[in-house]
Amino acid sequence: MSASSNSPVRETARSARQAAAELAPLPRTSRDAALLGMADALQSRAGEILAANAEDVTAAREAGTPEGVVDRLTLTTERIAGIASDVRDVVALPDPLGEVVRGSTLANGLELRQVRVPLGVVGIIYEARPNVTVDAAALCLKSGNATLLRGSSSAYASNTVLVEVLRDALERAGLPRDAVCLVPGRDRESVGELMRARGLVDVLIPRGGAELIRTVVEGSTVPVIETGVGNCHVYVDAAADPEQALSILVNSKAQRPSVCNAAETVLVHQDIAEDFLPRALAALTGAGVTVHGDPHWQKLGGEVVPATEEDWGTEYLSLDIAAAVVPDLDAAVAHIRRWSSGHTEAIVTRDTRAARRFQSLVDSTAVMVNASTRFTDGSQFGFGAEIGISTQKLHARGPMGLPELTSTKYLVTGDGQVRP
Amino acid sequence: MSASSNSPVRETARSARQAAAELAPLPRTSRDAALLGMADALQSRAGEILAANAEDVTAAREAGTPEGVVDRLTLTTERIAGIASDVRDVVALPDPLGEVVRGSTLANGLELRQVRVPLGVVGIIYEARPNVTVDAAALCLKSGNATLLRGSSSAYASNTVLVEVLRDALERAGLPRDAVCLVPGRDRESVGELMRARGLVDVLIPRGGAELIRTVVEGSTVPVIETGVGNCHVYVDAAADPEQALSILVNSKAQRPSVCNAAETVLVHQDIAEDFLPRALAALTGAGVTVHGDPHWQKLGGEVVPATEEDWGTEYLSLDIAAAVVPDLDAAVAHIRRWSSGHTEAIVTRDTRAARRFQSLVDSTAVMVNASTRFTDGSQFGFGAEIGISTQKLHARGPMGLPELTSTKYLVTGDGQVRP
Repeated sequence: MSASSNSPVRETARSARQAAAELAPLPRTSRDAALLGMADALQSRAGEILAANAEDVTAAREAGTPEGVVDRLTLTTERIAGIASDVRDVVALPDPLGEVVRGSTLANGLELRQVRVPLGVVGIIYEARPNVTVDAAALCLKSGNATLLRGSSSAYASNTVLVEVLRDALERAGLPRDAVCLVPGRDRESVGELMRARGLVDVLIPRGGAELIRTVVEGSTVPVIETGVGNCHVYVDAAADPEQALSILVNSKAQRPSVCNAAETVLVHQDIAEDFLPRALAALTGAGVTVHGDPHWQKLGGEVVPATEEDWGTEYLSLDIAAAVVPDLDAAVAHIRRWSSGHTEAIVTRDTRAARRFQSLVDSTAVMVNASTRFTDGSQFGFGAEIGISTQKLHARGPMGLPELTSTKYLVTGDGQVRP
Repeated sequence: MSASSNSPVRETARSARQAAAELAPLPRTSRDAALLGMADALQSRAGEILAANAEDVTAAREAGTPEGVVDRLTLTTERIAGIASDVRDVVALPDPLGEVVRGSTLANGLELRQVRVPLGVVGIIYEARPNVTVDAAALCLKSGNATLLRGSSSAYASNTVLVEVLRDALERAGLPRDAVCLVPGRDRESVGELMRARGLVDVLIPRGGAELIRTVVEGSTVPVIETGVGNCHVYVDAAADPEQALSILVNSKAQRPSVCNAAETVLVHQDIAEDFLPRALAALTGAGVTVHGDPHWQKLGGEVVPATEEDWGTEYLSLDIAAAVVPDLDAAVAHIRRWSSGHTEAIVTRDTRAARRFQSLVDSTAVMVNASTRFTDGSQFGFGAEIGISTQKLHARGPMGLPELTSTKYLVTGDGQVRP
């Protein structure tokens, strides 16, 4: 305990904590000015950033990293401009701090206000996407929080320069440099120390694949917000408009299959299966999707891969979909309850009763009626930006915007009131 | 893993989970009817309850349990009537479920509503107070949650009968019995299993002493809401009305010293120390309080016990108070930042600037101006009831009423919208 209490990770967390205390009372104008300075600095120092990024990219290619991952790691002048532009968009968002969430005057005259305040120190553990470094720091600063960033070790050179650029901009704006900190060290142990820095870090948000998220959730003593695993379902009800159902199904699955709000399973009410299944199969295969079907779907022929039980629980993140026929809406709900990750489910129906029952019984972050699962997203929901999509029930559920990066405190003002 | 996955604790948690799914869509009328049935049953079956409680009390006395603890364990006909009356009060509270927290119509015509839903299964780990068994079950049922109760093993007989009474009332009202479950077993291991039942239990709320809370917070993989440790401060500013300061100080310390919102430290601005300290000492000692003072206070004479550094961090929960003189408001804030548990702090001042600065800089659950720290309490705040006072920043902070026992989900309704 005494060894780790002086570790570089804990020292960094302490610095971030001190910065958080200085940030908390600052007005919006100070935070916005620093954000604008950050955006400008990212562009004016793009050369340094690109040079460091090239090191990471070369090392990743030499290590045989898959091209998709290398692509997400790679920065270009245009991508840096895009990242800077996103920071400027954050400046324009409403300030979450100071909002009065609840207020009343008590019978004894005490004035009670519950107001939004920063969480304090937000730790972000993420993969090889340097844009997350800036996104997360900007959203946290806008909401008055200090950020402790722990990106993939394969992006360490990029992140080191990006964070220095951000810290220099903070300092120029008169804010504490330590409002944005990179967790020192590229080794696994530094992640573990971050996860155990309870009392120094107020919340950890893992952003990345299922394995990363599980590791953080299970190993942390710091409170964690679980994000992003999506095994999403589209249920086509007996009373669905078939054309609408096809359009929503294909969009939910194929519009961008690699993301958490893409559909992974389609369930079809048996009363419309005979007509709908062949059309759905044609539409899905036409969009390049492989259907992993139950025996009803398998009857359609050789294009359908037989589904095993594993398929129902799989987040493919690819052009694959599991497919089943269900006897009724309640069976669809039961299937979802058993297999869903609780991210997003959609029903397609013209029956108000079915829509209402589905929305009432399905316990997921977002429950869609006659709309694509792909809409569960902070910017689609009009929140302007998101730091992740929470699939847990505590604190925040669904796309997390700026208010979800805050806590509250009660301000109570009186004139000598005491308890009788 | 496979052994524990069939343990009695996990089986009970699974039953509670199934009941939670059945509870979630029920309307208020069903939940309220069950609560009224519970209240009636508690009184009509008081004989059984008292008999079981007498066993626990006898065993506790034989084990040499301190009288204060035995008193909290003891039920009487009057106490049962009081508990039943509290349940009826819960019935009268507004329904938190279904409340639309946020809503909008998006540019593409999608209708978005964020509505309150139950958390699911709420686990409560608590000490030898059988009233908590009923309180917690009632608040959880009102908010649509199933409850997993793990009280002190010394109240096991009482809790067993109380839970059976509640479950019978649930069944008579047509609700699932397993909406209220007692964790089986009196051994420590059952607590550990509950703490590791991630995926079966949605949140754990420990209610009790600092040691219990720390154990649960540090050992749980289930998300925990930290409650109740209070090292609260009263800061008497240079611009305080001395009479008001004395009244608030004595009330904060002595009106009920055993609770978490009682003051444990008083800080006095040096500019008024010469006048204020002797009056404060007289008022405090007059109320039976022992002052543990810094050198400034020690000058007042032998009644003042010299304070050691340990005093600043102690939650006495007794008629003791730590006392110091500070050079200014910022020094008071720095002292609080270092030593406070983040529960409640109060400033006494007539200076609006000092009041504003104190409320801005102090990062505690509740920050009082010219009011007793004792007001941080769900019923004092007008919430009607509370399941505890959260001192963490995630999910809920401060007194937790019914809304804090809920999560939300997004209901999105469209007419075929897909993402372009």
